[in-house]
Amino acid sequence: MTEAPFQFDRETAVEALGDGRWSTQVVSDWNIGDNPNGGYLVGSAVRAAIEATGQPDPLTVTTHYLRPGLGGSDGELDLDIVRRGRRFTNVDARLTQDGKARYHLVAAMGDLGNGTLSDEPVEHSLTQAPVDIPPPDECRSRSNLEQGVDLPIMTRLDVRIDPQWADAGTADRAEVSGWIRFADGRPVDAASLVLFGDAFPPSLFSLLGKVGWVPTLELTVHVRRRPVPGWIQARFTTTDLHDGLLVEDGQLWDEDGHLVARTRQLALLL
Amino acid sequence: MTEAPFQFDRETAVEALGDGRWSTQVVSDWNIGDNPNGGYLVGSAVRAAIEATGQPDPLTVTTHYLRPGLGGSDGELDLDIVRRGRRFTNVDARLTQDGKARYHLVAAMGDLGNGTLSDEPVEHSLTQAPVDIPPPDECRSRSNLEQGVDLPIMTRLDVRIDPQWADAGTADRAEVSGWIRFADGRPVDAASLVLFGDAFPPSLFSLLGKVGWVPTLELTVHVRRRPVPGWIQARFTTTDLHDGLLVEDGQLWDEDGHLVARTRQLALLL
Repeated sequence: MTEAPFQFDRETAVEALGDGRWSTQVVSDWNIGDNPNGGYLVGSAVRAAIEATGQPDPLTVTTHYLRPGLGGSDGELDLDIVRRGRRFTNVDARLTQDGKARYHLVAAMGDLGNGTLSDEPVEHSLTQAPVDIPPPDECRSRSNLEQGVDLPIMTRLDVRIDPQWADAGTADRAEVSGWIRFADGRPVDAASLVLFGDAFPPSLFSLLGKVGWVPTLELTVHVRRRPVPGWIQARFTTTDLHDGLLVEDGQLWDEDGHLVARTRQLALLL
Repeated sequence: MTEAPFQFDRETAVEALGDGRWSTQVVSDWNIGDNPNGGYLVGSAVRAAIEATGQPDPLTVTTHYLRPGLGGSDGELDLDIVRRGRRFTNVDARLTQDGKARYHLVAAMGDLGNGTLSDEPVEHSLTQAPVDIPPPDECRSRSNLEQGVDLPIMTRLDVRIDPQWADAGTADRAEVSGWIRFADGRPVDAASLVLFGDAFPPSLFSLLGKVGWVPTLELTVHVRRRPVPGWIQARFTTTDLHDGLLVEDGQLWDEDGHLVARTRQLALLL
């Protein structure tokens, strides 16, 4: 494994073994309680996809979480290039640890730096403006929330929560807003938005209080732009909970106020 | 192939060939212009997944569209059971026609009729109420919209559009609402919501006018409940269009006003 200057890169490093197989490792420093964070877990697959396809950016990443990952264990990735296209390359990736599949991921890779992904310049654009929240210094660290779970991941990420959503079970709706960056100063890029889209407390926390571990069945992240350097602002809401299954929506903006990613996940309330 | 009483079932019929391989066919009666509708195209994979897993309902279906399907041609499905669980079974399916992969799909199958998918009854629920639109008789058939494309699919589906969104390029935002049911009276079920989630005009039509074929890169449908018999009401919006790529969100309700499915797709504006 190469020695990268930042934690996220060292701790998602991959090595090609040939025939679409890659070795990687999962460290426990990104855990939520006893389980590696799902956004961290797919970091190695996104990295292998970038290397295998030659496309720098994940445009859409859908992950089915099959079993919790194992922090502190090696892993093996199987990466299949499903279709290689001029603008988009589709991949399929599975992480195996201790003989069992941990997740199954499909992604379309592309290049967000080309100006336009369409054949012709598209003059129309629509966007969602960021919500108005206090600056990071006036928000509360996720470490200080009463979530009822240990958060080793806070050694790796700096996550600040808008005080409006920081007290368990006190809000009138399920929402969380705040800011996120790497703890060690690693610059943000398109690939890290896949991680940042799954690194906030469940938005049900503000409405229902301590909800513990909310296992994700399926998470899709759409990366819409490469972010400018700085903090990422994020907002997550849950307005759809039925029979123990919930859908959570997320939006991420960069410091220029551009919408850089959107997320949606199907998760289980235990 | 068995002779089912309804078009959708006959025209998505599958036959197991063993070792995860299934034969199917794609008819041209569900075309949008020259291309089979994407929601119809995955109908055979959803059916094979139901048969292979023994789970009656798709809970989440994500499809990467790789190439247009071929209407009027046979197809072969490869279906892999990725993980078989007590409550959820994850599958991977690929449709090949004329030697080329047409789509790659991942789905989690389950049973929406069990009351709760969580281990314990969950007392909390949140939902999104249907929007207020005119009844089907006061809406306009999708056949009568100036979309600039032939719609053979309207021989199979009865789609009514709220007049507010029915005139090309006259709205102040990208939205479409209306009603949908099968043309031949086939009852609606969880599996058909995957089709209905991809059978309306692009929501950009009301804002931008004739946008022609808007190819879907990725579509995820979350089925939240089994619908009661009757019409399905649907609403689609696009608030995020950048560099020719757009994200469209959808909500589907049954006649009891229950939210029965949600959709999100990443698509290309040509």
